[in-house]
Amino acid sequence: MKIPILKLKDCLLISIQTELDDATAIEFQEDLLNKIHETSAKGVVIDVTSVDVIDSFIAKVLGDVISMSGLMGAKVVLTGIQPAVAITLIELGIYLDNVLTALDLEKGLEKLHLELGE
Amino acid sequence: MKIPILKLKDCLLISIQTELDDATAIEFQEDLLNKIHETSAKGVVIDVTSVDVIDSFIAKVLGDVISMSGLMGAKVVLTGIQPAVAITLIELGIYLDNVLTALDLEKGLEKLHLELGE
Repeated sequence: MKIPILKLKDCLLISIQTELDDATAIEFQEDLLNKIHETSAKGVVIDVTSVDVIDSFIAKVLGDVISMSGLMGAKVVLTGIQPAVAITLIELGIYLDNVLTALDLEKGLEKLHLELGE
Repeated sequence: MKIPILKLKDCLLISIQTELDDATAIEFQEDLLNKIHETSAKGVVIDVTSVDVIDSFIAKVLGDVISMSGLMGAKVVLTGIQPAVAITLIELGIYLDNVLTALDLEKGLEKLHLELGE
């Protein structure tokens, strides 16, 4: 099953509420970039509140899709990173340095609107 | 895979982007009611833009979950009903008379805020 991407005004909202296997992650990457192209979205919020486990491949795909979206002109905010996921990411040496983050979907949208100067 | 339910302020957003089989529909019904209870959501938008086919069972489950949400105090707006789906529904004799509808997710949220008097 695909991960649904919701369009709200000029933003896309995604809530990942399933365990991401490698194939789903790659499909999601493609879907999101196509959707940005299709909708001319200026911002994207990816909510990972329900993601309890992350591995280095998934973290790389997420990091990549954020960079790719940036190249296409869309700002991405990653929200709802769980404590255990934050620990894993840093232990894996994945710092997601230039990625905007926020506590939850709402705060992510606020941050996005600020970033987009709205 | 479960249908993700996004919480945005006091509303829940759902975009159904998969073919709904009977089991998924029933699981979705349960999930949505639990989420309304959990989050004290006042409104729900269910977007069915990507649903091309609907049968009488799924239509009944959707109608039911809208009535159930109403009982729990949450208003539901159904958005993005495709022409083919509208035709099927009326031909099946399902009028969804007391269901609020709108063209897309944005308009659905607007309608919801109006209904909630915000």
